[in-house]
Amino acid sequence: MESILKSVKEASKIVSQLNGGVKRKLLNEMADRLEKYQNEIIEANKKDVEYAENNNLSCALIDRLVLNEKRIKDMASSLRDIAKLKDPVGRVIDGWKIDNGLEIQKVKIPIGVIGIIYESRPNVTSDAAGLCLMSGNACILKGGKEAFHSNAVIIEILRDVLKRNNLPEDIIAILPDYSRSGVEWLIKQDKYVDLIIPRGGENLIKFVSENSKVPVIKHDKGLCHVYVHKDANLQKAARIAINSKVQRPGVCNAMETLLVDRDIAGKFLPIIKEMMESEGVELRGCEITLEYIDIKKATEEDWHTEYLDKILSIKIVDNLEDAISHIEKYGSHHSDSIVTENLKVAEEFLNRVDSACVYVNASTRFTDGGVFGFGAEVGISTNKLHARGPMGIDDLTTYKYKIIGDGQIRE
Amino acid sequence: MESILKSVKEASKIVSQLNGGVKRKLLNEMADRLEKYQNEIIEANKKDVEYAENNNLSCALIDRLVLNEKRIKDMASSLRDIAKLKDPVGRVIDGWKIDNGLEIQKVKIPIGVIGIIYESRPNVTSDAAGLCLMSGNACILKGGKEAFHSNAVIIEILRDVLKRNNLPEDIIAILPDYSRSGVEWLIKQDKYVDLIIPRGGENLIKFVSENSKVPVIKHDKGLCHVYVHKDANLQKAARIAINSKVQRPGVCNAMETLLVDRDIAGKFLPIIKEMMESEGVELRGCEITLEYIDIKKATEEDWHTEYLDKILSIKIVDNLEDAISHIEKYGSHHSDSIVTENLKVAEEFLNRVDSACVYVNASTRFTDGGVFGFGAEVGISTNKLHARGPMGIDDLTTYKYKIIGDGQIRE
Repeated sequence: MESILKSVKEASKIVSQLNGGVKRKLLNEMADRLEKYQNEIIEANKKDVEYAENNNLSCALIDRLVLNEKRIKDMASSLRDIAKLKDPVGRVIDGWKIDNGLEIQKVKIPIGVIGIIYESRPNVTSDAAGLCLMSGNACILKGGKEAFHSNAVIIEILRDVLKRNNLPEDIIAILPDYSRSGVEWLIKQDKYVDLIIPRGGENLIKFVSENSKVPVIKHDKGLCHVYVHKDANLQKAARIAINSKVQRPGVCNAMETLLVDRDIAGKFLPIIKEMMESEGVELRGCEITLEYIDIKKATEEDWHTEYLDKILSIKIVDNLEDAISHIEKYGSHHSDSIVTENLKVAEEFLNRVDSACVYVNASTRFTDGGVFGFGAEVGISTNKLHARGPMGIDDLTTYKYKIIGDGQIRE
Repeated sequence: MESILKSVKEASKIVSQLNGGVKRKLLNEMADRLEKYQNEIIEANKKDVEYAENNNLSCALIDRLVLNEKRIKDMASSLRDIAKLKDPVGRVIDGWKIDNGLEIQKVKIPIGVIGIIYESRPNVTSDAAGLCLMSGNACILKGGKEAFHSNAVIIEILRDVLKRNNLPEDIIAILPDYSRSGVEWLIKQDKYVDLIIPRGGENLIKFVSENSKVPVIKHDKGLCHVYVHKDANLQKAARIAINSKVQRPGVCNAMETLLVDRDIAGKFLPIIKEMMESEGVELRGCEITLEYIDIKKATEEDWHTEYLDKILSIKIVDNLEDAISHIEKYGSHHSDSIVTENLKVAEEFLNRVDSACVYVNASTRFTDGGVFGFGAEVGISTNKLHARGPMGIDDLTTYKYKIIGDGQIRE
């Protein structure tokens, strides 16, 4: 396996120097050929689905695993979208001249070799490879073993395009060992790999973060809150709460806990109970909540839980201070929203809540690279350093200083 | 010790919200009081120096340890310089409106709690504390135990200013356990500490990087090269080589290996030998070098060695390709310079050498926050992510997205 990584490292030097035009051409060709070979992909995918069914994997997992004509078309158009993005490599993000005439430029460059560890969805394979390519990085991909056959065919198609363009195929590589021990090995290879991005369940993320020798940018859980302040427009508040919870409950930017100011609890809770229950949401409330509406009692564990499901915990708070404390204690610094018409309170919430995305009067569901206008996203970083929140191709770069002189020496 | 970190974490929330004006006032007061209490500092410092002398610590270390009136004045003016910097906190680095009217702002914010681990020089104490304060971070400092008394008095003066201004003293804290096990404990406290910056010898950096649960930005060694290309102006080349080596040999941005194109070796090597030897530099050359000048033979180990001393290894290379390979294999991605008048070659060197600072026709000695115009520096990062090269207060911040809506929900 080390020889593969060595070859990926070599390939990273080639891809780092490609012009935008070449990268766009490759991505478009890749998109075309995914469509051209869709039957082969669907054939391979059937084997994976069959295996999953025979091994009683969950319906949700099988749903994420399945590829059909429509999904392959989406994968292709995702590559074409990436091909339209502005090339981040070589962008001068700052530049100045110092007193002795030295010209300093701060220039964006690729990171190098990026290892991406993900789970069942095989479309992540082409998305991740495309994003790495456009940002000038080589990648080593480790998909879920339940998508083994699908990923193998997809990668083969992408690599074939590289080969046909006389480029090293290992610009896009796949980790041959699909087991946990493969991951364990990969995250120790700091000689060859510059960044590890784990996407997936809590256990995977925890294991990678705690054991990696390579820098990690986590795409961890989202325990998101909506806080309905006493000066909220309650109609807006209800609409935002419903959307944050039910528009797609299984994703990281969905709300898990609703915080409600005590002053408006009597008015707001009955409204929210009716709306949530009509959407099939199970409610769990703190003791004070139960004084207003008849729902299940929440336990301490509920405040810590990312349900990823149609379950919502509700807590009554005294004021902004109390709401911020709750978010600080139980939140995951992902996305949190306040509903209020009070400017000062909104400002304070924006400044004091330490989350990647902090909202005023909007659904938490907007935390997304596509929505933010990044074209495509690697995921949503829950790291605090380097990249935070929706992570696009810009965040797959670092920088160097280029300094141009004419014989200057330091006095 | 945990209760101290808890209190530092609490303090970090306060300092993160201070306005620039308040921070500047604090820094200026700190500067005034360092000067006012210089006798107390010098008294304490004497104890440290005495201890160092009695324990036969090296002259170089004692030199770095000593504080006198001049050095205290420098510490104070460094704080005053930091107070003049533009406040990075709250700076909007990007902002746009998406189709549904949501306003997105990408805003710089402090990182939180920063642990800085450093060695003998007690002036780092006030520099580091000042930089963290100006960037809105709380800090926990772990200085060298040989500077224990000096650091204690300096920190006391800084904390007293916080107290007099009704702010939590633990915005600037000192790790009470000055031993290696103190460091070992600190780097595991990812619940309280957001970033660890180790400055010092290779062993310290290695230990911290390998064992920290907190993200680390390393300030590691500099194995810097100057490459004299065949199209170089040899006078410039000699001046740059001498300056890179001898202007201050003990620092990370000094040159350790000189690469010389074979085509000009016969002309250039005798010049450089004479100049380097007249500056007292010991030369070690590759086999081909020895065909031109009579110096000691370099071993494989020499190419790997950061001498931090008046020693220089010299290697003859065939061409640019060969020079880049050598830098890639032996360099530390810190600062590397090419001397050439050939535009194409210069461009290629700038693009392909993967170092934080890549120079054309200038001394490697310019890699420095002060020179770059950052006012003061935390150090020179040898990390590839988050911050690379000279690291100023801007790099002590991260960002969040503030998103302002008027009831938007996701369709």
